[in-house]
Amino acid sequence: MYKINGNYANLKESYLFTDIAKKVANYAAANPDKKLIKMGIGDVTQPLIPEVVEAMKKAAGEMGSKETFRGYGPEQGYGFLREKIAEYYLTQMNVQLDADEIFVSDGAKSDIGNFTDLLSDDNVIVVPDPVYPVYVDSNLMLGRRIEYIYGNESNNFLPLPDEKTTGDVFYLCSPNNPTGAVFSREMLRKWVDFALKTKSLILFDAAYEAFIREDLPRSIYEIEGAKECAVEFCSFSKTAGFTGTRCGYTVVPKALKIDGMSLNKMWLRRQTTKFNGVSYVTQRGAEAVFTPSGLLNVRKTIDGYLENAKIMTKTVREKGIWFTGGVNSPYLWIQCPDKMSSWEYFDFLLNTYQVVGTPGSGFGKNGEGYFRLTAFNTKENTIEAMKRISK
Amino acid sequence: MYKINGNYANLKESYLFTDIAKKVANYAAANPDKKLIKMGIGDVTQPLIPEVVEAMKKAAGEMGSKETFRGYGPEQGYGFLREKIAEYYLTQMNVQLDADEIFVSDGAKSDIGNFTDLLSDDNVIVVPDPVYPVYVDSNLMLGRRIEYIYGNESNNFLPLPDEKTTGDVFYLCSPNNPTGAVFSREMLRKWVDFALKTKSLILFDAAYEAFIREDLPRSIYEIEGAKECAVEFCSFSKTAGFTGTRCGYTVVPKALKIDGMSLNKMWLRRQTTKFNGVSYVTQRGAEAVFTPSGLLNVRKTIDGYLENAKIMTKTVREKGIWFTGGVNSPYLWIQCPDKMSSWEYFDFLLNTYQVVGTPGSGFGKNGEGYFRLTAFNTKENTIEAMKRISK
Repeated sequence: MYKINGNYANLKESYLFTDIAKKVANYAAANPDKKLIKMGIGDVTQPLIPEVVEAMKKAAGEMGSKETFRGYGPEQGYGFLREKIAEYYLTQMNVQLDADEIFVSDGAKSDIGNFTDLLSDDNVIVVPDPVYPVYVDSNLMLGRRIEYIYGNESNNFLPLPDEKTTGDVFYLCSPNNPTGAVFSREMLRKWVDFALKTKSLILFDAAYEAFIREDLPRSIYEIEGAKECAVEFCSFSKTAGFTGTRCGYTVVPKALKIDGMSLNKMWLRRQTTKFNGVSYVTQRGAEAVFTPSGLLNVRKTIDGYLENAKIMTKTVREKGIWFTGGVNSPYLWIQCPDKMSSWEYFDFLLNTYQVVGTPGSGFGKNGEGYFRLTAFNTKENTIEAMKRISK
Repeated sequence: MYKINGNYANLKESYLFTDIAKKVANYAAANPDKKLIKMGIGDVTQPLIPEVVEAMKKAAGEMGSKETFRGYGPEQGYGFLREKIAEYYLTQMNVQLDADEIFVSDGAKSDIGNFTDLLSDDNVIVVPDPVYPVYVDSNLMLGRRIEYIYGNESNNFLPLPDEKTTGDVFYLCSPNNPTGAVFSREMLRKWVDFALKTKSLILFDAAYEAFIREDLPRSIYEIEGAKECAVEFCSFSKTAGFTGTRCGYTVVPKALKIDGMSLNKMWLRRQTTKFNGVSYVTQRGAEAVFTPSGLLNVRKTIDGYLENAKIMTKTVREKGIWFTGGVNSPYLWIQCPDKMSSWEYFDFLLNTYQVVGTPGSGFGKNGEGYFRLTAFNTKENTIEAMKRISK
């Protein structure tokens, strides 16, 4: 008789977005005349830039002709794309990477979920709270022990290691989902030094790096020594609106070794065995992001989201509400006014102003009393929502 | 200090295709005037059909417009595609499936590799020898015990269970890679009865089902009771030339339960946590395979490959060489003549006839003394290669 992985029975169902959807649907049914503004989703709303669309159309055409058809590509991604990503790191972040330290995949979520295949199950996994639920659930599925480090107002939801910090594998996300807070160089330096000293592994989620416009680190490899202790996950999802197009990349430096084993070689082995690469058409689309006009256009799209975030922070600041994020990030993380709980504030905003956000408690117990608003909306809707809240 | 998954150190590097490439490159360098014919690769060579190309271009265009842009889709695939796959099962195989028993993914290799996440590590895994190496390696990575059932001439490389057969999870592949042999209904019936009786799980790889033209089962669900003991993996790779376009699907019937746990629900949980769905553009391309002219055109492409296989079997039969496959499959599995080993025959074919195949020993110890030839070539090349061998 076959036996299932019993850890699945211990997973909690997440009802966060289901519950939100239900409440919104009920309200809409009862108030058909009211216009709802949704500021809860973490998904982009602007279309792909023309460079990407044209590149994908061209590549699709190539696949239809015998002379230019492509079958299986390299599991780790085509050289033409990996080299462009390496160039992006060099020119935009002054980080030197070899193309074979970059692995193209169908998205950061897959890689974040799969990367810990390379680690033994007795590692202690440390995740910040509040947190993107995938870090926790993908480890619970393997029966791993999880510890939390707490984000709060006093550390601006950017916890740092101290003498008492223990654990083996640390998830960091900057700009952070859900809080929008961003590590400074000095803060990341503390994490890298800690990891080097304790031989810990940092799994760094840089999915929102393209939103950084101030002098803050966009890659953990901007910090010296990080190549010996950190893996970085990134994606075209938020950089270029690829949430429905699916393309990401993971950096596994060749300097990253433990017990004489190279994590770069292990990940290559994992990917060649359990993955078959990303669609050629998609990879050509991703490549087009790195053309001069492509880079300009994706920047313009992000400018639009950042403009929304600015409108939001202005209102929240005027109302005297504590917040973080909203700069260098599409997320604004606010304290619920009048000591309301996250769900109380959700109900209040929905019923009073017809604005939908995400209760912070859905991201962990330290999110209770906080609320996430996102800038992935039109400018008109953002202005209208803030006008309502200002009242 | 973090600890790696020590099972990776136990993996053997596979040098099969590297060694083949080296030998071929050396020969080509020494004999620049000789024309090589490659019959070794398991990759399609014909372009995507026009229906697929047009659908992908149209979908790429939609992604570039604000009104029709799509962000995150359902992790398990869009309803429009899952319903078409269900209809394909019903009309082509008389198998009734609900759309929510079908999970769209980036390919069968990913799903075959990831599905055993749902199983505990103390299951005994049984794989046929010779075998597609992914079955073995993906389990070795988890430190699982693997046992083999042997294919040979007396069972036509289609081993069946008997009273002595033990194990928990059984991989079956039909039409088989590498041998091209296909299970009959009676044979699959024996496997299903065995699995039901012993509460074993069958992982059925149907990647080559579209090559079946005789009255043989294309899905394990054609066998009564299979929904209670089998998961089926399939793909557009060989059906519609998607090896570089990346789209597959896995069927996890709702009737498949063990210890009160539904594998369908577990797989949904795994995919929603560690996967973010397939590109919208790709899914629209896959959908176009199921239009009336799409089905006709992919059939024509496969007809071409099957015609090549027929040319190959004719030559091999005339030479009096034992073989299997070559009908209902793109693979021909032949016994090396004159008691040559697989690599001796490889060298002989390369040096004498400039024909490149795959040594059977690369697929397991029971492949020694056998050789795989593939029909993924042009008709002209296939005829030319057989002419040379006939001499």
